[in-house]
Amino acid sequence: MPYRAPVADFRFLLDHLAGFKAVTATDRFAEATPDMTDAILTEAAKMCEEVLAPLNRAGDLHPARLENGIVRTSPGFADGYRAIAEGGWIGMSASPDNGGMGLPMALTTAVNDMMSAACLSLQLNPLMTQGQIEALEHHASDALRDLYIPKLISGEWCGTMNLTEPQAGSDVGALRTKAEDNGDGTYAITGQKIYISWADNDFTDNVCHLVLARLPDGVPGTKGISLFLVPKFIPDADGNPGRANDLRVVSLEHKLGLHGSPTAVMDYAGATGWMVGPENGGMAAMFTMMNNARLGVGTQGIGVAEGAYQHALAYAQDRRQGKAGGSGSIIEHADVRRMLAEMKADIFAARAIALMCACAIDMTTATDDAAWRARAAFLTPIAKAFGTDTGIKVASTGVQVHGGMGFVEETGAAQYLRDVRVTAIYEGTNGIQAIDLVARKLMDGGEAARLLIEEIQTGAEGARATHADLAEAVWQAAEDLRETTDWLVAQTDLQQRFAGAVPYLAAFARVLGGHAHLAAAIHGDSGRARLATFYIRRLLPEVTGLLTQVREGADNLLEISPDDLAA
Amino acid sequence: MPYRAPVADFRFLLDHLAGFKAVTATDRFAEATPDMTDAILTEAAKMCEEVLAPLNRAGDLHPARLENGIVRTSPGFADGYRAIAEGGWIGMSASPDNGGMGLPMALTTAVNDMMSAACLSLQLNPLMTQGQIEALEHHASDALRDLYIPKLISGEWCGTMNLTEPQAGSDVGALRTKAEDNGDGTYAITGQKIYISWADNDFTDNVCHLVLARLPDGVPGTKGISLFLVPKFIPDADGNPGRANDLRVVSLEHKLGLHGSPTAVMDYAGATGWMVGPENGGMAAMFTMMNNARLGVGTQGIGVAEGAYQHALAYAQDRRQGKAGGSGSIIEHADVRRMLAEMKADIFAARAIALMCACAIDMTTATDDAAWRARAAFLTPIAKAFGTDTGIKVASTGVQVHGGMGFVEETGAAQYLRDVRVTAIYEGTNGIQAIDLVARKLMDGGEAARLLIEEIQTGAEGARATHADLAEAVWQAAEDLRETTDWLVAQTDLQQRFAGAVPYLAAFARVLGGHAHLAAAIHGDSGRARLATFYIRRLLPEVTGLLTQVREGADNLLEISPDDLAA
Repeated sequence: MPYRAPVADFRFLLDHLAGFKAVTATDRFAEATPDMTDAILTEAAKMCEEVLAPLNRAGDLHPARLENGIVRTSPGFADGYRAIAEGGWIGMSASPDNGGMGLPMALTTAVNDMMSAACLSLQLNPLMTQGQIEALEHHASDALRDLYIPKLISGEWCGTMNLTEPQAGSDVGALRTKAEDNGDGTYAITGQKIYISWADNDFTDNVCHLVLARLPDGVPGTKGISLFLVPKFIPDADGNPGRANDLRVVSLEHKLGLHGSPTAVMDYAGATGWMVGPENGGMAAMFTMMNNARLGVGTQGIGVAEGAYQHALAYAQDRRQGKAGGSGSIIEHADVRRMLAEMKADIFAARAIALMCACAIDMTTATDDAAWRARAAFLTPIAKAFGTDTGIKVASTGVQVHGGMGFVEETGAAQYLRDVRVTAIYEGTNGIQAIDLVARKLMDGGEAARLLIEEIQTGAEGARATHADLAEAVWQAAEDLRETTDWLVAQTDLQQRFAGAVPYLAAFARVLGGHAHLAAAIHGDSGRARLATFYIRRLLPEVTGLLTQVREGADNLLEISPDDLAA
Repeated sequence: MPYRAPVADFRFLLDHLAGFKAVTATDRFAEATPDMTDAILTEAAKMCEEVLAPLNRAGDLHPARLENGIVRTSPGFADGYRAIAEGGWIGMSASPDNGGMGLPMALTTAVNDMMSAACLSLQLNPLMTQGQIEALEHHASDALRDLYIPKLISGEWCGTMNLTEPQAGSDVGALRTKAEDNGDGTYAITGQKIYISWADNDFTDNVCHLVLARLPDGVPGTKGISLFLVPKFIPDADGNPGRANDLRVVSLEHKLGLHGSPTAVMDYAGATGWMVGPENGGMAAMFTMMNNARLGVGTQGIGVAEGAYQHALAYAQDRRQGKAGGSGSIIEHADVRRMLAEMKADIFAARAIALMCACAIDMTTATDDAAWRARAAFLTPIAKAFGTDTGIKVASTGVQVHGGMGFVEETGAAQYLRDVRVTAIYEGTNGIQAIDLVARKLMDGGEAARLLIEEIQTGAEGARATHADLAEAVWQAAEDLRETTDWLVAQTDLQQRFAGAVPYLAAFARVLGGHAHLAAAIHGDSGRARLATFYIRRLLPEVTGLLTQVREGADNLLEISPDDLAA
């Protein structure tokens, strides 16, 4: 079953919902004309369909492996990586000053969506590099920027993120890796890092690690952490890979999925590194990288959902069974139709949210406006958690549509579920995304949330004349969300917010999805309108139950003691 | 992390909710005294904890394999199987006439729950045999019963079910396997069957296949199907395994999980079989087997959920991270607490439903009362689908609680998710369970549903004096369910019912869970009462959104055409 990139969906969302016209109206992104946008989407689609998608199964069956300290990658991955690099897709949003294309994140998001659908385990490599380029653009010295970014963009080198340590998972501030000043502008980095995605490979000339570590006088916690660039091979005077640095891949994890992506334990034994950003300013620099990576991971979930959906749809169209009527295929059964409609409606909602988030990032870049910055920050955890939750849900439904064939690995349905499961965990678990949303992202007194809800309600009011029922349903769901947002903001005890963080994020995503589907009902063809009706009348009502959970606060949750749970 | 059987939960549910006292008050089950019940639960718990649980990981790492036509099972499975057989657990509900213990299905369900938690892939073997014993007890000739059942109960032989063919998945009526009369009381069976669980092993002396096939004059569809018992080795005059029958394991599937359980393609090449039940009466005989197997599979989901929950709880208690307060473990974080509370509350609800279903089966056996028969039939699809959906949801949440460690296979969290995923598919997909519920199980005009809802509302009314808020919430949810049930019954076009079948089943399960938790609030200690409050105030409100979906009917779903889905 070949992957077909959903180019029409990207065009529709960019044209009618995400705010892409405002992005391309700015000086900064004036080059992203409709012709350019079409060319980008079409070219990337072609590569994903023809080059990357055929690699997906091989990556699963022939995992990356560690041989005598060297990572050997899955069959065909080297060629796939070269195609990505040569297409210019790694640096498409990077600054033209360093060889990037300077295109909007909205387009990068669409391309990342397609690459994730085609071959998630390989796509994770350029996604990490994109984050590293972003961090270096904002925080590195001119010398580091000039040396590293062009090679990262060209794909000669690639990048990784090194945050986690065995005793410090989500609590980055507990890290112990040390950095000592060598007195020559470099630092000696010593420590162990875990869960390092694409820590090594056999198809780039160098691997550049961004490593969080603590200087001898760094205070405990996150405020004493600095960021260092630590290459596998130290560049020589000409900028070419020179002597091997004092670092190594200790082992690779045996994982549920994403077998084509090597996940390593890394050991740094006094490795030479260069500081990125100011002393003890590592977290700020890392957050630059992580915020975009969060949108990128949400997009991974959406891409995999698309792949799983197309796989299930093809099976349902082909498989004949029972007295199905119509074509005789199982797609004629109401419950199969329900599953497929739910998959497609959820993907559309999640993709709309990701593109809205990307456009907000682009508007921030273009205008440096605080309101756009706040919107981008607010939408990022929603895009990450809802995109990845949708990926898992859709992939699991895809297995179900296949019936017994879904449990047999040869069909490929199960691989989507195994691969995508980690996206709800890495780059900050979805629980942490939700906590970020109700704590940090409501620190403005709920201003960013309220502006977004107002926009949704204004859209619904405009739709009342032509789509009375749907508009009312979206307006009312947004109103319930506004009331619950006010309630959350009024809770000064953060535990009251944390207890309902996950259902609040889910409810916000559902309402944003209603907003997107209402736009689809207005601007789309009759097919989009029918799917919108399905979403708004059947899925949006979940909001009521979710917001009820939020308003329960923490009391009757935290009264359940660890002893009660163990009884 | 060792498994600890939740014996206290079984005792509580049997004492206070499931209707077990009425079961043991019948003559048929008078032997199931409190002392006997305690002994059964304690002994089975000991075997599951000490013998079966240690095999679970080995089954995953060393799958059953086919070598020169012979299935080699996972390390330790032969010993585990012997322990199950010697404990008498295979035939605990079988008739004492043939060597069974004649105990209630409620106790068998509790034991199957524990065995599933400890080692699902091995437990599937005796579960299939239990179903075969049941089918033979009701439908086989005296000669077949006398020969086969004692050996199935002793564990010398084991049993399988052969329904599915490549072109006939859920549509059993499309099967093509032929049966021809040999003129000597036997039949020659020819055809291919797929997805045969435990089709062969290296630890029993014989494997007895129950095979659906069509006689030459059998009409097309389900009414022309007969059932045959086809042993791997044909019994000699003394009833010992004699010459090899003309059947073979063609291949084993490479599956997402349940690696310890061989899933085979079987080829029958004129194999000798004996008819079970009347000519063309195969479906009725098979349904005897499948109905109990459906409860059994629902129970598998619950057992795996328990295993996954205990695994995640232990991790959350041990793992120190962040400023968690209290013990310093992540269990102090509100969102981790929320995940664990939801897992535990859902398991309690699902287990209550399974035991209610088992007790209804026992009352049917003991009294032959039509109302009990109707209740058992109504609860079976709910127990199957909600039990297995809970298994999948809880196992996935268990992965999430582990964070990055959840994606690494060594922790075992992911195995629960991989293993349990099939339970929503086999023995009739959960979609088919839901369709059975809204079609066949409402053919009585909704009588069985209404009696159950009345019982829930009567319980809630009795609880108003002491638990006003919780009682009102359960009563109202039941009332909403009653109204929607009436609406469903009024739909003579079955498509209108099918479109909302899955959300209706989910809503019914949620309300039954509310009923169970209300009983826990009344009869349980303060820990159970706190969990009940959590369930009723946070999870039960889902019912509103689910019933909204049901009431939408089919129109705005079926208007979404296959072309819309493909666009």
